[in-house]
Amino acid sequence: MAEKPKKPQKLRARLPRGLADRGPSEIAATRAMVEKIREVYELYGFEPVETPAMEYTDALGKFLPDQDRPNEGVFSFQDDDEQWISLRYDLTAPLARYVAENFDHLPKPYRSYREGYVYRNEKPGPGRFRQFMQFDADTVGSASAAADAEMCMMAADTMEALGIPRGSYVVKVNNRKVLDGVLEAIGLGGDENAGRRLTVLRAIDKLDKFSADEVRKLLGPGRWDGGEEGKGDFTKGAGLEQIFADRLLEFVAPVEPTINLSNDILFTMPKHWDELAVNARFSEGGKELLEIRKLCEDAGYEENRVKVDQTIVRGLEYYTGPVFEVELTLQTRDEKGRPVRFGSVGGGGRYDGLVSRFRGEPVPATGFSIGVSRLQAALTMLGKLDSAPEFGPVVVTVFDRDRVADYQKMVAALRSANIRAELYLGNPKSMGNQLKYADKRHSPCVIIQGSDEKDDPAGPQLLLKDLILGAELAKLESDREAYLQKQSEVQTKVPQASLVDEVRKILDRHGVKWS
Amino acid sequence: MAEKPKKPQKLRARLPRGLADRGPSEIAATRAMVEKIREVYELYGFEPVETPAMEYTDALGKFLPDQDRPNEGVFSFQDDDEQWISLRYDLTAPLARYVAENFDHLPKPYRSYREGYVYRNEKPGPGRFRQFMQFDADTVGSASAAADAEMCMMAADTMEALGIPRGSYVVKVNNRKVLDGVLEAIGLGGDENAGRRLTVLRAIDKLDKFSADEVRKLLGPGRWDGGEEGKGDFTKGAGLEQIFADRLLEFVAPVEPTINLSNDILFTMPKHWDELAVNARFSEGGKELLEIRKLCEDAGYEENRVKVDQTIVRGLEYYTGPVFEVELTLQTRDEKGRPVRFGSVGGGGRYDGLVSRFRGEPVPATGFSIGVSRLQAALTMLGKLDSAPEFGPVVVTVFDRDRVADYQKMVAALRSANIRAELYLGNPKSMGNQLKYADKRHSPCVIIQGSDEKDDPAGPQLLLKDLILGAELAKLESDREAYLQKQSEVQTKVPQASLVDEVRKILDRHGVKWS
Repeated sequence: MAEKPKKPQKLRARLPRGLADRGPSEIAATRAMVEKIREVYELYGFEPVETPAMEYTDALGKFLPDQDRPNEGVFSFQDDDEQWISLRYDLTAPLARYVAENFDHLPKPYRSYREGYVYRNEKPGPGRFRQFMQFDADTVGSASAAADAEMCMMAADTMEALGIPRGSYVVKVNNRKVLDGVLEAIGLGGDENAGRRLTVLRAIDKLDKFSADEVRKLLGPGRWDGGEEGKGDFTKGAGLEQIFADRLLEFVAPVEPTINLSNDILFTMPKHWDELAVNARFSEGGKELLEIRKLCEDAGYEENRVKVDQTIVRGLEYYTGPVFEVELTLQTRDEKGRPVRFGSVGGGGRYDGLVSRFRGEPVPATGFSIGVSRLQAALTMLGKLDSAPEFGPVVVTVFDRDRVADYQKMVAALRSANIRAELYLGNPKSMGNQLKYADKRHSPCVIIQGSDEKDDPAGPQLLLKDLILGAELAKLESDREAYLQKQSEVQTKVPQASLVDEVRKILDRHGVKWS
Repeated sequence: MAEKPKKPQKLRARLPRGLADRGPSEIAATRAMVEKIREVYELYGFEPVETPAMEYTDALGKFLPDQDRPNEGVFSFQDDDEQWISLRYDLTAPLARYVAENFDHLPKPYRSYREGYVYRNEKPGPGRFRQFMQFDADTVGSASAAADAEMCMMAADTMEALGIPRGSYVVKVNNRKVLDGVLEAIGLGGDENAGRRLTVLRAIDKLDKFSADEVRKLLGPGRWDGGEEGKGDFTKGAGLEQIFADRLLEFVAPVEPTINLSNDILFTMPKHWDELAVNARFSEGGKELLEIRKLCEDAGYEENRVKVDQTIVRGLEYYTGPVFEVELTLQTRDEKGRPVRFGSVGGGGRYDGLVSRFRGEPVPATGFSIGVSRLQAALTMLGKLDSAPEFGPVVVTVFDRDRVADYQKMVAALRSANIRAELYLGNPKSMGNQLKYADKRHSPCVIIQGSDEKDDPAGPQLLLKDLILGAELAKLESDREAYLQKQSEVQTKVPQASLVDEVRKILDRHGVKWS
């Protein structure tokens, strides 16, 4: 038998993994969130500035935690002149470039904010996207702890502006210098250990995903993805001796209750770590944290809002001092009743070296970034964002296809009165299809005019069908009296001249916003 | 002599060509524009939907006019699984993918809108960027001329909503079928000539940039960038014989006054082109245009707003029927007094084949795209967008660096009253620097408290300096009496307890919006 000729292959409509489309309610929720964040940032005196989605790769630097992919975590391509360009993976590195380029005419300290998509060429997973939105605020040119404290307070204010009640979020603060001191105490001090320190920090940063035992593997020889030797991918570890890995974990993941080393420093200290008390780097970090805490305290931000937490690390390489993280502390349950913790919805810190790379002089800077996409997912789950689809437009149906121009005029009349309205543009062969369409659009009402209505002896009339009432009616079928009463209200005949007024009545009846 | 050791090279802070940063007034202008466009589109019953910035390259297709660059006009990279991904170059191709992917649960016709950045890997030039913003509306699933007419009317309404007076813009409509008929008449009909037809259309589309003589070269053997043979780059032409190129140009760039071929068709016809009168493709296009015109006419959109224009082509390959272009017809002058024409600020058309590629069934569609970045440039030049920087925040200065927490509280008090305020975060060594900073921030006023004010016998006081009045004062120096009068008002001592009220007075005095 001869083979059948193959059909020409259709193109498949699909998105690359880790990318998603966004519908009306999601878009509306983002707009509302962004507006509220913007208001808080403006109130704090920050002004907007935006950079494009791409930069020279060398200007962005390579500060990403996950470098285990060929493109090293960023999307890159070569320009005509062979120079490498990358999509931004955060909003901080491009801001550093912007400030360096415009340094002389910017006010200093320079407070600015921006919101936009960032792109990560990482392995996508549940809730882990390759394009997501961030909303950042940065203060460049201030070395003051007041600038860091301001970031923390602003983060707290932003959470409350978004409807998250006090007590349901917390801004946690730590300091890279404190961590550096701890690492120094286990023999990882000095420039020659910079690379290993970073590996260690990134392993610690995984504590929100992995158990302490798994992180211990990353601090030591390494870790197999599959749970045992030879299974899954192998991640090389930092190579710490067991005793040092244990000590480190005692500090960053303490299991014992908090014991303050002194009245000033708020950390839980491992028992035998006397060396930290005389470690200069550790003390400097502790002193800065104390200053931030005092400024917050004085401004009325108690520990239930901004709190020192020695377990906070942040995965990015460029932080040089205080680091912040905002966590939602409330729990909820997923569809299957399992508890869901939201964890971190934003973070930041001091990055004194990032602008300096361009300037060749010290330029202190601190910033904070809200993960808009992640926070939005949390707020939606908590019911803090109204994602119910609002009503659609009024639909003017096409009863007589030769009279499209007449129907178009009705649409125009409604629009002139600021009422969202549209002409049915599909094939008008059946009124049933047109009503189904209006239902799918969540239209509050439809307008129908056949020749009977048009040629009415009392002057041109219209049929107005109240679809919201119609839907209520469908639920009432068992109650005959109420049914008959409502039925008469669902479809009414009104003079064409009072189209706008009659439609307004229906919209008002159901509380539909129409202008 | 030994060479001096080289300094380590600083990284250069710069953007790739064709990309730009955006400051506060630009961002504010875009927000205002986008808000107005959105209102019009919503009123027409369109609902928002957004797609990510990147798509599989094959899903986007290759419909760009400028394919003379290695990347063929788009930014592309290979994913881990070797598949090619590209940044979107418009918002239409991604929408087609979205509709095809979600076809079964979308209402049809499906009216939607979206705004976002698009990316073109093209040679940048003055006013020609590699990242720019578009705002699109599309109706998928309607073959009706009413859908095309709606696009034209909505485009007109949008221009007026943006403050462009009637008569200062025009929506021009043509039809690819008309152009196809013309090309058929010069022997370019049939599938076998599809490629050449496209080359011809793209040459014609250059009529807004090049003279007819230059376009004639592109229609014929080709064109040298430098103006004469061997100079600059060479663009291969469509290879039309001279007489056909001339006839074509008579049609798309008529120099004689309009002569209607009949009462119905509105084109200027070349004298000897009787063949067009019996050309089926040409007639079909003409009939559709007539229908669109009639619908617009009936809805009150006269020819000063929506007008048939045989010179409109549009460079994109995917159009299959009506094509639209919005032009600003007003002129202005640049800084050097030279007249500036704005030309096209948006366009679109019917693209019946774009969704079908995925579906294997016909899916009619029509859409319209506003070039937000380009329109914004025009509106700014015309003074229709207020780009004056608004006032900055109130600045609380740091007189005594040990009292930062006290100053911080004043800032908090102002913010609680919804007044934008900030603490000076730079090095507080000189008050002069702090005042200079406040000036640079366009602050309306600054607050100063030294120990004299703090320990005032009448209770804690503040010095309030009105910077707006101060700036006026500087201009008044010659008028001694007015100067002295104002001088006393510039800096006043007020009780700390009435901080908010006194600042409000200053803001009100100058009409600064504070909540």
